[in-house]
Amino acid sequence: METPWEHRYAHRAQRMGSSVIRELLKLTEQPDIISFGGGLPAPEVFPVAQFQEACNTVLRDLGAQALQYSTTEGYSPLREMIARNSARYGIEVTPDNILITSGSQQALDFIGRLFINRGDHILVESPTYLGALQAWNAYGAEYITVPSDENGMITDELEKALRSGPKFIYVLPNFQNPSGVTLSLERRRKLVELADRYGVPIIEDDPYGQLRFEGEHLPPVVVLDNQYRAGNGSYSGNVIYMSTFSKILAPGIRLAWMIAPQEVIKKLVQAKQAADLHTATFNQIVAYEVGKDGFLDEHVKLIRQTYCERRDVMLETMDELFPPSVRWTHPQGGMFLWGILPQGMDAAEVLKIAIQRKVAFVPGAAFHPNGGGENTMRINFSYSNPETIREGVTRLGYVLKELIAEKK
Amino acid sequence: METPWEHRYAHRAQRMGSSVIRELLKLTEQPDIISFGGGLPAPEVFPVAQFQEACNTVLRDLGAQALQYSTTEGYSPLREMIARNSARYGIEVTPDNILITSGSQQALDFIGRLFINRGDHILVESPTYLGALQAWNAYGAEYITVPSDENGMITDELEKALRSGPKFIYVLPNFQNPSGVTLSLERRRKLVELADRYGVPIIEDDPYGQLRFEGEHLPPVVVLDNQYRAGNGSYSGNVIYMSTFSKILAPGIRLAWMIAPQEVIKKLVQAKQAADLHTATFNQIVAYEVGKDGFLDEHVKLIRQTYCERRDVMLETMDELFPPSVRWTHPQGGMFLWGILPQGMDAAEVLKIAIQRKVAFVPGAAFHPNGGGENTMRINFSYSNPETIREGVTRLGYVLKELIAEKK
Repeated sequence: METPWEHRYAHRAQRMGSSVIRELLKLTEQPDIISFGGGLPAPEVFPVAQFQEACNTVLRDLGAQALQYSTTEGYSPLREMIARNSARYGIEVTPDNILITSGSQQALDFIGRLFINRGDHILVESPTYLGALQAWNAYGAEYITVPSDENGMITDELEKALRSGPKFIYVLPNFQNPSGVTLSLERRRKLVELADRYGVPIIEDDPYGQLRFEGEHLPPVVVLDNQYRAGNGSYSGNVIYMSTFSKILAPGIRLAWMIAPQEVIKKLVQAKQAADLHTATFNQIVAYEVGKDGFLDEHVKLIRQTYCERRDVMLETMDELFPPSVRWTHPQGGMFLWGILPQGMDAAEVLKIAIQRKVAFVPGAAFHPNGGGENTMRINFSYSNPETIREGVTRLGYVLKELIAEKK
Repeated sequence: METPWEHRYAHRAQRMGSSVIRELLKLTEQPDIISFGGGLPAPEVFPVAQFQEACNTVLRDLGAQALQYSTTEGYSPLREMIARNSARYGIEVTPDNILITSGSQQALDFIGRLFINRGDHILVESPTYLGALQAWNAYGAEYITVPSDENGMITDELEKALRSGPKFIYVLPNFQNPSGVTLSLERRRKLVELADRYGVPIIEDDPYGQLRFEGEHLPPVVVLDNQYRAGNGSYSGNVIYMSTFSKILAPGIRLAWMIAPQEVIKKLVQAKQAADLHTATFNQIVAYEVGKDGFLDEHVKLIRQTYCERRDVMLETMDELFPPSVRWTHPQGGMFLWGILPQGMDAAEVLKIAIQRKVAFVPGAAFHPNGGGENTMRINFSYSNPETIREGVTRLGYVLKELIAEKK
């Protein structure tokens, strides 16, 4: 039935689309399908007992406060805790530089709200995070893409892209979603230097930074920028940094944060007042209660160990069973790896067959805002247990072998 | 220090402003000020014990699910519960007509996202809810105002306003924020009839509908619209209805809902995917656990009784101590009443003196998008206990008497 709303949509509503991934995930929700399509943390590592204890403590001691409206900026002790933890990674900021958001997706939306006029160009890696594209498409963003390889964004191609005048650079330096690759130290430095030379600021999206299984921790882009620009390492404001509790605690509480210059925080607070007033008070106080005594430091070790084991099983099984013409990344952390099929093969077509064989992944084309990547696939290794991963990769290996044999 | 972000704000960021009220509330946060300025529920009625029990049950039985990502539409059992409860008030919809939002503010933001192009005219009551204005100003809304009196929006003035072609009508029919008045049954019918005649749809914002202390419950506008248009009372889709758990459970969990035609829900889901993926899973399951066995029916009785007592103390003290030239509304429910000072008096000036005397309220001008209302004030009666209300109204009465005596 037609309703009077249908002819009343705003222009921006025409630009909204449904997430390819979320729609795809619905298809793969049949219980007998092994899905490497989602981006879910392992439920086995959720600290349920700690949540239970924290909920009890918070409701007993701070019930009236936890259930009441609160400030838009976020719960002060939580912001102080984030400032302290950030300092350990070299990000020297005060709680006044921190805004609590309802998940990282909200942070991306606010970036769009504050900075993107229709037709503005945003410089992104290709492939890049789909949630950012979805948030910014609604604001009419266009994209300048810089390709990436095993060491992240190819900074040798960055300068050309910067010349076309992007509003900002968006980069996921650690174990990127979707590709799983990490931006090398050398390229981080190059990125900071070129951004400074062209006067283009940076959004650093770092949901997985703490989930490193091997190799050395690399300094965040924001830290390198501060060293380069301010000399003494104090926050220069050129990089807006964002991270989340979704991957180190739990995504179902929708809790993330942004680090930004104070005058940007002021604008972000205005955006948040209009968008949802504030993030749930209860969730903020509970997360603080869970995290305040250093629990997260211990807990991320368990997450790293669990995900490392799953990645290893996935890589081993792929080594064993995938046809030699298929390549894939070897992430040092995070939740995803990236498969590259022979040129000319279409991952979306592969998925159709794979679903019949009860295994799923995400075709990579959607992560390329300006096209390309039809022969790529995002494969998640965090969610399924090792046995299931072995079985799923085995199924996928057979599908790929058959399809590639057919082509010959 | 200037950062490169400052010159990069989008046009819409220039239109954002900070909430007058939230900024004002910061001024009144000194502990010795009695503030009738906020819009906070009484913390004494938060069902802390029920939350504690529900958190324990949910984490014990559904921990992995409650802490995980979930669907954008919202937790199905919660949407089913809302559909059942809505049916009791005559709103016959399925869970597919319901979207869970992160508070009503998010619902208002989504309305703006979906329907408001820059320069669109929205028909609102004057005064109207400030949160809606704040959400929609960012999208470049302009307003057509229809004045209201003790029976809500003066529908005799509605037709003229409808002729100028508003995108939609926004109305808060029950115990309106800020004025506390309720739209009469006769005017509800008139509103539905005129909206139909001019083909203009309606947003019905109903956060306080269940908080009626006295008088007969009136059918929601959506129900009258369904009767008028569909005859059989089935959902016609002309009215988007929104309500919240903030006033019947707790605002600190940020949980509200929208009822809309399915094709609008589809668009809303796209908006929500881009805005925050989904509302916190944990909060939704906990709210369902608290509410599923009819607890809310009992609980709202306690809230009504508590707020009724507070309203009565406020009205009695005002009768006793306010100068006769000041008038005020007598709300039959909700959380606010509306004071009207003699013409020519400026409530913002009164507030300055009042703060010196350690009592605060919100001057009414901000609730009038097209100006006016300088002599009005919003006074909250839900938050302070009866003793504090008596003391605060006494202080305010002295201030008003002095100022009005001076003027003579």
